Amino acid sequence: MAARLSPQQLSEKHRPTLDQALDTIRTRAYWSPHPEHPKAYGESAPADGLAAFEALRDTRFELDQPGTDDWTGGEVSPYGPALGVTYPHPDLDVLLPAMRAGTAAWRDAGPETRALVCVEILARISARTHEFAHAVMHTSGQAFMMAFQAGGPHAQDRGLEAVAYAFAEQTRTPSVADWSKPQGKRDPLELRKSFVAVPRGIALLVGCNTFPTWNGYPGLFASLATGNAVLVKPHPRAVLPLALTVRVAREVLAETGFDPNLVALAAERPGEGIAKTLAVRPEIRIIDYTGSTAFGDWLETHARQAQVYTEKAGVNTVLVDSTDNYRGMLANLAFSLSLYSGQMCTTPQNVLIPKDGITTDAGEKTYDEVVADLAAAVDGLLGDDARANALLGTLVNDGVKDRLATAGTLGDVALASREVAHPDFPDAVVRTPAIVRADGSRKAWDKAWEAGVEAEVPYLSECFGPVSFAIAVDSTQDALELLRRTVRERGAMTVGAYTTSEDVERAVEEVCLEESAQLSLNLTGGVYVNQTAAFSDFHGSGGNPAANAALCDAAFVANRFRVVEVRRQA
Amino acid sequence: MAARLSPQQLSEKHRPTLDQALDTIRTRAYWSPHPEHPKAYGESAPADGLAAFEALRDTRFELDQPGTDDWTGGEVSPYGPALGVTYPHPDLDVLLPAMRAGTAAWRDAGPETRALVCVEILARISARTHEFAHAVMHTSGQAFMMAFQAGGPHAQDRGLEAVAYAFAEQTRTPSVADWSKPQGKRDPLELRKSFVAVPRGIALLVGCNTFPTWNGYPGLFASLATGNAVLVKPHPRAVLPLALTVRVAREVLAETGFDPNLVALAAERPGEGIAKTLAVRPEIRIIDYTGSTAFGDWLETHARQAQVYTEKAGVNTVLVDSTDNYRGMLANLAFSLSLYSGQMCTTPQNVLIPKDGITTDAGEKTYDEVVADLAAAVDGLLGDDARANALLGTLVNDGVKDRLATAGTLGDVALASREVAHPDFPDAVVRTPAIVRADGSRKAWDKAWEAGVEAEVPYLSECFGPVSFAIAVDSTQDALELLRRTVRERGAMTVGAYTTSEDVERAVEEVCLEESAQLSLNLTGGVYVNQTAAFSDFHGSGGNPAANAALCDAAFVANRFRVVEVRRQA
Repeated sequence: MAARLSPQQLSEKHRPTLDQALDTIRTRAYWSPHPEHPKAYGESAPADGLAAFEALRDTRFELDQPGTDDWTGGEVSPYGPALGVTYPHPDLDVLLPAMRAGTAAWRDAGPETRALVCVEILARISARTHEFAHAVMHTSGQAFMMAFQAGGPHAQDRGLEAVAYAFAEQTRTPSVADWSKPQGKRDPLELRKSFVAVPRGIALLVGCNTFPTWNGYPGLFASLATGNAVLVKPHPRAVLPLALTVRVAREVLAETGFDPNLVALAAERPGEGIAKTLAVRPEIRIIDYTGSTAFGDWLETHARQAQVYTEKAGVNTVLVDSTDNYRGMLANLAFSLSLYSGQMCTTPQNVLIPKDGITTDAGEKTYDEVVADLAAAVDGLLGDDARANALLGTLVNDGVKDRLATAGTLGDVALASREVAHPDFPDAVVRTPAIVRADGSRKAWDKAWEAGVEAEVPYLSECFGPVSFAIAVDSTQDALELLRRTVRERGAMTVGAYTTSEDVERAVEEVCLEESAQLSLNLTGGVYVNQTAAFSDFHGSGGNPAANAALCDAAFVANRFRVVEVRRQA
Repeated sequence: MAARLSPQQLSEKHRPTLDQALDTIRTRAYWSPHPEHPKAYGESAPADGLAAFEALRDTRFELDQPGTDDWTGGEVSPYGPALGVTYPHPDLDVLLPAMRAGTAAWRDAGPETRALVCVEILARISARTHEFAHAVMHTSGQAFMMAFQAGGPHAQDRGLEAVAYAFAEQTRTPSVADWSKPQGKRDPLELRKSFVAVPRGIALLVGCNTFPTWNGYPGLFASLATGNAVLVKPHPRAVLPLALTVRVAREVLAETGFDPNLVALAAERPGEGIAKTLAVRPEIRIIDYTGSTAFGDWLETHARQAQVYTEKAGVNTVLVDSTDNYRGMLANLAFSLSLYSGQMCTTPQNVLIPKDGITTDAGEKTYDEVVADLAAAVDGLLGDDARANALLGTLVNDGVKDRLATAGTLGDVALASREVAHPDFPDAVVRTPAIVRADGSRKAWDKAWEAGVEAEVPYLSECFGPVSFAIAVDSTQDALELLRRTVRERGAMTVGAYTTSEDVERAVEEVCLEESAQLSLNLTGGVYVNQTAAFSDFHGSGGNPAANAALCDAAFVANRFRVVEVRRQA
């Protein structure tokens, strides 16, 4: 049996990390305690991680949870192989009460101990980043390096960020206060008051297929750090990364003297739709969800007993007005469109280009030239199959594959998708992105919205995956209006813009401020519109239809707990 | 035309007040910048305030709002006289767009200027506290002194508290940050990031009849300070205090260079139900509501485009186990039951007393003795008509009067209500509270809940007004369980308990922590369970069915704005 970790030991080990996180969410400077380079994890880590992952395959994933009535699982790697892992299927009437049993002790431990236990969980996950990378790669279809970074350190950063916000919010009110109200000549009124952060109940994390850890950790750690038990319901095609997470969390909880059932897994049978059942259970008081707009809206409407945090579909726009670094712009955009085959919620979909062309440092460029040069930039980036494989990963599921196959029906194809062979996984579906030309004249989209037939204009809805639109707009002014309408009606996780004009810059900024969208301006180097850094960048705004919450701000954590006050006469 | 107030002048005048508020919400010590004593407002203030109030009667309340299509109003003082004031009725298709016109400038002003403008609004309201006191008295039916204190300084405190929380939340992220990420031997990635707090849109405040300012100011100022325009929809019987508030806010906004239409009034025609229309308008993105559970639930379900903050009905319990100050307990309870005729959302309704009696410093007391002594304490407190009038105020509406009239059908009456004549207002309906004995045996309530016929047990639902129940429970253990069930199923704004036992104290505390209810223990002096102090006490917890928000915490303000980030390559 592992040694018990005392609060004192936890504090010595992790308080500096927590303090640095608290400091960084205030300064928004760069910081991360989780290395991005695979080599930073030690010489044997790559082989150990792969071996650990391989050892999980074709096994029953034991978690020792109460109320396991069955075993289920059918993950098939987007790279081809079936994983063969089965997971406990819960009897909710046993598991949910068991999860509540430990919440009083977890509450009484207080915000600091909870935060430090969470940091320990993250530290142990960090130590196994190579193993997690394989698990993420073979469930999301990400290329290894991306699975490593986004599924490992970047996800851990987002988890730690949530822990820091949770700690900060819970400690804004002191645990004890003396209150003395003068009464003129009479004695003052005196009270001793205590304040306790109390959890809401059980939190439900509904995981997604593409970023099981990155999109899952903020909600998981925000809920756990604020005293709630957390039930993790992974996407049926991406169970393993979150099952590993649950296992580590349960180990750490037990070793620090808490009930491991504060974190549990709810794997589902094929087609069971257990999220719908869970979402309306009275025990579930918080829900975090990343996925389709349809189910996100369903949760917001029906899970009335819970606080619901959703990240849904959106349509991300890049407005191209002018640039003083044409090559840099093309290279930056090409990378953004290619990374993980455009399967990020932050990938640009609509590139708005004035039909009369743009001014650049390389001279005036017509719309056709810009589109052709962008297509060539993508081609150049992905010309080498090894590099293409390293950037693209695989298509995550048949839905994306089918959508890509119909790209030719959406308009004139400026860049056709091509198949890329994977050297190690012959069944992997690796595809380069397609770019489709589209008519962006005001009459094309304005009428469609007015008439309620916006579905007939393909770029007005999310087309998830490696299809983007090079949209010929009448003018930059029109592009601003299309951007505004798109964000307002469809939501957006990201907006990008390229311009050398201060007026245009100010105008696009104003649209983003008014419609609540996160904006990246004139990115031409190694930062991409689809990437955000924890502790510094907000992911989503929570103010447009793409997401009702941002990762991570005070609003993301402040309502996961309540403060109960006890007043006594002094 | 009044002199324009510059940000610099505002800062010199109000920044110390804001800083003190920011400090006090952290320490939770006693503080208020708004004097409670009517004399503190100057010698002529009482007469001036009364005259100002009288001058408003039988007039048209001009606000110079765009889109006024009619004049409406029919307030009748619960003390008898009709007020005769009419207010602008809005053409929403004109008013709502006009309210949005000034939001960009209000947003660009930043959190500090917005906070200071709000403090100026509160300072001007404070200077007119006597006038507001009459307006609150003659709409809520509160006695003058209570209308003065709760409707004046205490309401202003709650408004300032919301301003402080809003400022604190909006300034947690810096407005500019430089971010530099090392890249080994290559140049670091460098970005300049700006962060702007942006409003959600127009906030709707739906006011209540009993505490138009106290319950209205937190939402109003939280929304305004976070950059939103605020539309104030008062209760049709309590328009004047909020109309005055809107007028002051519009004056200050104009004088500080902002659009007065950032705050507007929406008075309604009799039976119009304008709140329902407004609540689902797409422009309305925030709603604050105090009132019935039915409409609060309706808002939470239907106003899906808005953040909805509700305070609804609840059933407040006082658990009596034992006391070392029997007289103090009785006096304290008697006052709590009597204040404003029990028409506070915080007034105790259910007093749980073991059927076998309790231990006190005055010896063992049987259930019958406790009930008789409590009735006598209320009688003693209210025996003098002048004092009774000063404490009770009037019944706010016929609903409360009718409910009181049926108290005799709810059980054996331990203390009958009596009529009190008002020296100045012969039509005022002044009534002392009734106390009804009730069977609190476990089988009486447990079965009712199980069978879904809890409506048949009167004390299991809110009986708003001056009716309380002296409930004979089988044991303190049973009382704890009844308390738990009542909070869980019905909600509670307050819980009180009297005990000399550490075990019982710990047990009742545990129930309140688990069910998220605010607890006052062994109050026997001049602090009452139904009163809370801004900056120190939370009003409600937001964690049980009586309210989905607490006044005031970070969660109350953090989601009224979003943060938009703009990233640029450095």
